[in-house]
Amino acid sequence: MSTVSLSLKEIGELATRVFSRYGCDEPNTRALVRTVVTAERDGSLSHGLFRVPGYVTSLKSGKVNGKASPKISHKTPVIVSVHGDDGYAPLAIERGVPVLAEAAKKLGVAVMAVTHTHHFAALWPEVEAIAERSLIGVACTCYMPYMAPYGGNKPLFGTNPIAFAWPRPGRDPVVVDMATAAMALGEVQIAAREGHSVPLGTGLDAKGKPTTDPSEIVKGMLLPFGGYKGSAIAMMVELLSAGAVGERFSFEAAEADNKDGGPPRGGEFMLAMSPELVAGLSWEVHCEEFFRRFEAIQGARLPGSRRHKNRLSDAPREINADLVARICALCD
Amino acid sequence: MSTVSLSLKEIGELATRVFSRYGCDEPNTRALVRTVVTAERDGSLSHGLFRVPGYVTSLKSGKVNGKASPKISHKTPVIVSVHGDDGYAPLAIERGVPVLAEAAKKLGVAVMAVTHTHHFAALWPEVEAIAERSLIGVACTCYMPYMAPYGGNKPLFGTNPIAFAWPRPGRDPVVVDMATAAMALGEVQIAAREGHSVPLGTGLDAKGKPTTDPSEIVKGMLLPFGGYKGSAIAMMVELLSAGAVGERFSFEAAEADNKDGGPPRGGEFMLAMSPELVAGLSWEVHCEEFFRRFEAIQGARLPGSRRHKNRLSDAPREINADLVARICALCD
Repeated sequence: MSTVSLSLKEIGELATRVFSRYGCDEPNTRALVRTVVTAERDGSLSHGLFRVPGYVTSLKSGKVNGKASPKISHKTPVIVSVHGDDGYAPLAIERGVPVLAEAAKKLGVAVMAVTHTHHFAALWPEVEAIAERSLIGVACTCYMPYMAPYGGNKPLFGTNPIAFAWPRPGRDPVVVDMATAAMALGEVQIAAREGHSVPLGTGLDAKGKPTTDPSEIVKGMLLPFGGYKGSAIAMMVELLSAGAVGERFSFEAAEADNKDGGPPRGGEFMLAMSPELVAGLSWEVHCEEFFRRFEAIQGARLPGSRRHKNRLSDAPREINADLVARICALCD
Repeated sequence: MSTVSLSLKEIGELATRVFSRYGCDEPNTRALVRTVVTAERDGSLSHGLFRVPGYVTSLKSGKVNGKASPKISHKTPVIVSVHGDDGYAPLAIERGVPVLAEAAKKLGVAVMAVTHTHHFAALWPEVEAIAERSLIGVACTCYMPYMAPYGGNKPLFGTNPIAFAWPRPGRDPVVVDMATAAMALGEVQIAAREGHSVPLGTGLDAKGKPTTDPSEIVKGMLLPFGGYKGSAIAMMVELLSAGAVGERFSFEAAEADNKDGGPPRGGEFMLAMSPELVAGLSWEVHCEEFFRRFEAIQGARLPGSRRHKNRLSDAPREINADLVARICALCD
C-alpha cells in the first residue's frame, strides 16, 4: 500500500477544506475536523480520513445538515436531551457533554439522550471527555441491521458499539470502545477483498448458514462476539441507544435511510457518574490499587493504552495515498 | 441422580427451618427463603437449595450477620446508599429497591450502592423487581478472584455477573443475567468430576497455560467469555461493583475472607432508569415493535424467557436427594 506522510496539522487542513467545501459551517467543521484528527492521531484509522468520502456523500445528498445547531434541554436535573438538528454527532456531543458532566458532578449520576444526529465516528472521544472531568463515562449507539441475534438467521442489530471510560486523575483514563460484533464489518470486507477466510462464528451467509467465507458474510450478516452473552450485550446497546433515547432502532434507521452511503439518522445514549459522590473521597486510591494489580499481571493490558501511546507522537502520520488523492479530488 | 419431589411450599418450609436454626431473624429468614424459592421455581438451580450449606457455614462462622438490619440513606436525591450491616444481600436489596425506584421514577435515573453485604444468589430477582416498576434495571457484583484478564496468567476478576432488565408493561420483562466468565465455575467443577474436557478458552491451569482439562482449570483460573471484549466487560463489572460502590474488589474480598466456604463481604452496583422520562411517553409502543421483530427471527430467543416459562408451573420440583438429606441433617 502506498502512503503519504501528513502532519496532524496537514490532516486538519485537508479535512477543513473538504467539510467547508460541502457546506459545513464553522462550528460543525471544527467539530468534525477534531474528530478526524484525533482518530488519525491515536491510530484509530477506520474513524479518521477513511470516513471523509462518506461524510461528503451524506452532505451532498442533503441527508445531513452541515449547519446544524444542536439544542440542549433538561428533562429533569439529571436527564439531558440533545436534539442534534439532523447534523453529525460531534457538535451535538461537544455541546452536550459539559452539561451532562455538570449534572453528574452535582447529583452523582446523569444521562444524556442524543437524538436527530448522524453518528459516523468512534465513541471513545466522548467517554474520554467525561473521564477527563473525573467522572465515569458510558456511551453506546446503534446503526444499521448488520448483525443477527445469537441463534437467529436474520440481521436486526447494528454492530452496536459500547464505550466505557474510568477516570484516573493525573493519568490517562482506562477506555474501552468496542463493537459488539465478533469482527468489524470493515475487517470482514478487507478479508473478502484479499481472499482470506475468517473464523467460524464471525457471521452467516444470506440464507443464515454459518460460513468462513467473508464475501458470503458481507452479503449475509455478522454475528455478535462471545455467543449468547455478547448477543445480550448487543441487545442492551440497541435498547439503550434507541428504546431509552427515543430514536430509531437499527431496523428503523435502515428503512428510513436514503442509502447514500453516509450514516443514517440515529441516537446515542450517554451516562456520567461521579465516583466521588457514589463511593466517597477514597475512590481514587482504592481504584489505583486495583489498576496496579492489573498492570502487574504479565500479558494483561488496560484497554485504551495503545491509543494513549500513539497520541504521544507528533510525527507525521502515514495515510493511504489513494484515500488522500480521493479527498483532494473532492476539494476541487 | 436420585431426586425428591418438593412443592414450592415445602422448599420454603425447609429453607425457613434451616435459616431460623442458624440464627437468622424473621426479616432475614423471609428474604433468604424468597431468594431460594424463586430460584427453584424458575429453574435457576445453582442459586436455590444448592447454596444452603454455604449459607450455613457462613452463619456458623459468624462471618455473616443473620440479624442484619440494613440502613438506607440518600447521598444525593439520585444516589441511594445501602449499608447491609454485614448480612446477606437479599434483605438489603429488598429494602433498597423501592427507594431506588422512587428516585428513578421522579428524576429519571438513580444509582444504588450496596455495601457490607454478602451476595450468594442470582442478580435477576433485583433487576426484575425494577422492571416490574416500569423501569430499566442494571445490577452487577464481583466476588473472589477466579478469572484472569484476557491475555493475562493470574486471576484478578470474580466471575463478575451483570444483569439487565427491560420493562414490558403487561408482559414479562426481558431479563439478562450472565456471568462474564466463559463458563460458570460450577459447570467446570462438574466437568472435572465427570471427566469431560471443556472447550479451549474456558480457563488456564495454575501456571497460566491454556488447557481443556477442567480439573486443571479448577486449580488454575477461568477466562472471560468472548476474548478481550468479554474481559473489558468483566473489568467494567469489577470497577462498578467495587470501585464505584466503595466496597472490596475481588482480590480484597479474598484477602479479607475467613475461607469458611460462604460468600465474602462485597458490594453491588445497581442502576434504575425511567424510559418514560428519558425517551418520552411513546417508549413502550416503540420498544414493543423491536421485540416483535426480534421474536419473528427464527432461532432467536429473548433472554429470561426460559425462567418466565418455568415459573408458570406450580408442580413440585425435583431436588437432588443428597442435597435434601444434607439440608435436613443441618436442621437437627
